[in-house]
Amino acid sequence: MPTLRIALAQVNSTVGDIPGNAATVRRWSREAADAGAHLVAFPEMMLTGYPIEDLVFRNSFVEASRQALRTLAADLAADGLGELAVVVGYVDADGPPAISSDAEPGTGRRDASALLHRGEVAATYYKHHLPNYGVFDEDRYFEPGDTLTVVRLGDVDVALTVCEDIWQAGGPFTAARRAGVGLVVNINASPYELNKDDVRLRLVKRRAVEAGAAVAFVNMIGGQDELVFDGDSMIVSAEGELLARTGQFTSELLVHDLDLPVADASPNVPGSTDATAPDVEQTIDDDMSVTRVIINAEISDRADDRDGGIAERIADEEEIWSALTMGLRDYVDKNRFPSVILGLSGGIDSAVVAAIAVDALGPDRVVGVSLPSGYSSEHSKDDAADLAKRTGLDYRVQPIQPMVDAFLANMSLSGLSVENLQARVRGVILMALSNQEGHLVLTTGNKSELAVGYSTLYGDSVGGFNPLKDVPKTMVWQLARWRNTRPGSPIPENSITKPPSAELRPGQKDSDSLPDYDILDPIIRGYVDRDLGRDELIAAGNDPALVDRTLRMIDIAEYKRRQSAPGTKISGKAFGRDRRLPITNSFREGVKTSTAP
Amino acid sequence: MPTLRIALAQVNSTVGDIPGNAATVRRWSREAADAGAHLVAFPEMMLTGYPIEDLVFRNSFVEASRQALRTLAADLAADGLGELAVVVGYVDADGPPAISSDAEPGTGRRDASALLHRGEVAATYYKHHLPNYGVFDEDRYFEPGDTLTVVRLGDVDVALTVCEDIWQAGGPFTAARRAGVGLVVNINASPYELNKDDVRLRLVKRRAVEAGAAVAFVNMIGGQDELVFDGDSMIVSAEGELLARTGQFTSELLVHDLDLPVADASPNVPGSTDATAPDVEQTIDDDMSVTRVIINAEISDRADDRDGGIAERIADEEEIWSALTMGLRDYVDKNRFPSVILGLSGGIDSAVVAAIAVDALGPDRVVGVSLPSGYSSEHSKDDAADLAKRTGLDYRVQPIQPMVDAFLANMSLSGLSVENLQARVRGVILMALSNQEGHLVLTTGNKSELAVGYSTLYGDSVGGFNPLKDVPKTMVWQLARWRNTRPGSPIPENSITKPPSAELRPGQKDSDSLPDYDILDPIIRGYVDRDLGRDELIAAGNDPALVDRTLRMIDIAEYKRRQSAPGTKISGKAFGRDRRLPITNSFREGVKTSTAP
Repeated sequence: MPTLRIALAQVNSTVGDIPGNAATVRRWSREAADAGAHLVAFPEMMLTGYPIEDLVFRNSFVEASRQALRTLAADLAADGLGELAVVVGYVDADGPPAISSDAEPGTGRRDASALLHRGEVAATYYKHHLPNYGVFDEDRYFEPGDTLTVVRLGDVDVALTVCEDIWQAGGPFTAARRAGVGLVVNINASPYELNKDDVRLRLVKRRAVEAGAAVAFVNMIGGQDELVFDGDSMIVSAEGELLARTGQFTSELLVHDLDLPVADASPNVPGSTDATAPDVEQTIDDDMSVTRVIINAEISDRADDRDGGIAERIADEEEIWSALTMGLRDYVDKNRFPSVILGLSGGIDSAVVAAIAVDALGPDRVVGVSLPSGYSSEHSKDDAADLAKRTGLDYRVQPIQPMVDAFLANMSLSGLSVENLQARVRGVILMALSNQEGHLVLTTGNKSELAVGYSTLYGDSVGGFNPLKDVPKTMVWQLARWRNTRPGSPIPENSITKPPSAELRPGQKDSDSLPDYDILDPIIRGYVDRDLGRDELIAAGNDPALVDRTLRMIDIAEYKRRQSAPGTKISGKAFGRDRRLPITNSFREGVKTSTAP
Repeated sequence: MPTLRIALAQVNSTVGDIPGNAATVRRWSREAADAGAHLVAFPEMMLTGYPIEDLVFRNSFVEASRQALRTLAADLAADGLGELAVVVGYVDADGPPAISSDAEPGTGRRDASALLHRGEVAATYYKHHLPNYGVFDEDRYFEPGDTLTVVRLGDVDVALTVCEDIWQAGGPFTAARRAGVGLVVNINASPYELNKDDVRLRLVKRRAVEAGAAVAFVNMIGGQDELVFDGDSMIVSAEGELLARTGQFTSELLVHDLDLPVADASPNVPGSTDATAPDVEQTIDDDMSVTRVIINAEISDRADDRDGGIAERIADEEEIWSALTMGLRDYVDKNRFPSVILGLSGGIDSAVVAAIAVDALGPDRVVGVSLPSGYSSEHSKDDAADLAKRTGLDYRVQPIQPMVDAFLANMSLSGLSVENLQARVRGVILMALSNQEGHLVLTTGNKSELAVGYSTLYGDSVGGFNPLKDVPKTMVWQLARWRNTRPGSPIPENSITKPPSAELRPGQKDSDSLPDYDILDPIIRGYVDRDLGRDELIAAGNDPALVDRTLRMIDIAEYKRRQSAPGTKISGKAFGRDRRLPITNSFREGVKTSTAP
């Protein structure tokens, strides 16, 4: 049995930074070669970043990707890395360059994987299964491939697949079994969700057994707008045994020796030879054809042995914290903000966001502003100052009362208008500091608040990014407690234990307007995350009156969410592209169809 | 030849208001019966409204639609309308009610058309072609139907189809030809775009000829968030001749007598009989099977003759103005706002929005606030007052300087920060008036401004709806001039002719920061609406330096657009769900791939 040394490059890619991403491939390919690897695999859409969304409709973008791939192949050879097989994701299109056409959206665009070798694009494969649910719109963007590409690398057969191909039965993995391959390389841009790593491991094992081949699964890391990629790359044997696995949210090269069967001299798949390419043989599977590409490569046994090892899984709170810090860091850095700014109320949400920001960027890149009003309690100001001291962030105090008073003196406002006014004056101050000094404003509304609309539009909701957007309030507390068990204990105990309040009128508490969060959050989880209706929520044990009140609040807050800042998705269904609801919507759960006209 | 009297109900439906929509069907069915119609057709998703987006994932919603359909059939019979064949769109699902399941998103949901007769759901059809481009995500939501439903109504054969079925070749219309039907009823929720009516007419004619059958095309009217439906219902003969056509944006019942061939006693399509339903016969077409439903109905010739007539098309400006007024009116009314409020700067954008609002809602439901600063010119204040006088809206003046001064006295701000501060103080005032009095705030940024980011986030961009969101600046002027040729001439001549200015610093003009709009708009149209790249834009004759500057401005303004208010789509590609771009995006047109690592 030949031993193939595989390297999986779990790296960070930036949407649109094609030259930078190509440079990353060259740098890590060098590392892989130095480690003696025969093959290195990079994530899905490595060259372009993922997801590129409607950029795919711009021919100039697609052409830049295609050209960068050819340039990369040549550059790798020039770097002396021509003998290394490099598998890399990019966006491709059918036919010749189409710079000047008004092609129909989605026509002929491909989510592609290429194998580069000796300065050439030796083989390509087009993703077969296209996800079109949740945050994914790939039926909008791509044509599905219908051909499995099998590369004979020396004397082992390697099949190329992409991401969703592993999530659905049939297609490429069935074709891989018929083609008798030894290894399936599956490149991914699979976004993080809590507990998704367990699902992935089960899937990879199942497909390996189905294909009767080892599977090398490589995933991206890094943040891209509302998504964060967690890595979790792995190698599983043909028997479904986990052989090696990377850490989560880590930038790393997993190098592992894999014993693979010698490929049949004459593959047991009948087929016609493609006359235009003498080293390519084609055959039809049940629903996919197979293209064979033969590459003369020497798979020589290395003197040493390499075992990638199996990194331990981290606990849920650390996993989420890692996702939130990585999501924020990459939003800030990839959009080239020098620093962030946020209002510090002394409450739990702004304290946790500040702690995330300091962990992500360091205290020197975080500005916290206490914005006290006449209704702010002493403990709020103290807690904000305490947080600043614990974290070392740039702390400032900017009282809002003079500005609030100017509005009140010139307008006739009362009640909720005055509460919202205070929040909006704070928003104007933070945005003015952002304009003046260049900081990105962070907003701190958690998922529970966003769900029920417990926020002031253009007030506390101002900001370019929201780390807690997909974090329910009960989980905010859980994260705070967990973080305080780690070095620095950044969050004041008082911010964790005191009852939450917006402090927009004397003695105000969240509980004046909302059910307790440990009652509210399960209703939100059922209605938002699981699409349960009123009857199902009541059958699950929730109080009917609370269900009705909560559902009504969630329904009418859609207009606020539509103008909300992006924030990192960590759940199975986040607000944003994951959940697309009309603003104008008269449907009310529990209101039965009337028979009166 | 039997003469079928067809009624097409071009009506307005509200998303989620299932009881109200059912009541609309009953009311208009009564009108159709009074006019002697044998068959009346309502739009796609009439019962639920369209588009329902992720509401389709809630089983309680789908069940409400299914149950409302059965109730409607019974109610129509109870109304004495049982002999009228009523074709109506709704959302259906496969199998029995699934209230308590955690079914996978999109599994078994159907965009359906039903024919109701004598108190029963006599026939159903599931949309075959699902659009998944532009604003449409139907692959996310629905399973495609694979069976054409042919109803023998008395002695004529009528096929049921839905919307996109007419936009794509093959499928239902091919099956209709093989089945030898006399009429295809195509129910639609087809959103307005400028000049789309010409495309629709050509398509309907082509499909009629392909099917060898008359086609009755009925479309919805009304606004739903960013979409507006323009009606434009029509009847075309089997020879492709336009026989009758409704007006655009009108609520109306088109009644037309159509001579149709007598159906074959034994249809020339071989097939097996479905044993479970004695009056249903099934056969397989090339790619769709055909289900036949036989309904005993008397198609008696009426004593009079009815010709629906062909309404004249309206000019582009009137078409757009109708779309914008209907889009705004329905957003306001369907979301139950009593009134709207907007800032009046004396400039063209706020003047046109005010005129649209007054046309849509009447002057009593429109509040205009002049918000002068120290930089506001006299003519700005005069022009705002003049507009108020011309339109009769509720006019107020609220100087902003005291509030601006309060910020300046307490913070160290300069330059752009001070400009943005003024816009944000105006935003706070409008939002405070909205909170205090219940108005919906309208924002007035046009498509050109939105494209290049020429606006202040949380400043002039505050608001729940933006009528000009998809209207380029040059078209704003064109609309203003056109509207002033009509009764009332609401827009001050000076607002049209003076050079545009944000008036945020002394003597400021748009042209200080932006190319002239007649140069800018074509670049935006190419880059945004047509996905052209830099080279194509330059090849089209645009100045290279201006192209580079404009593309850069458009690219970096994506974060502002992500938090922008919804507004009516009138173009082939509007900002919003029609154009989905990443915020984090390092791709810059014209920057070539570097070969240096």
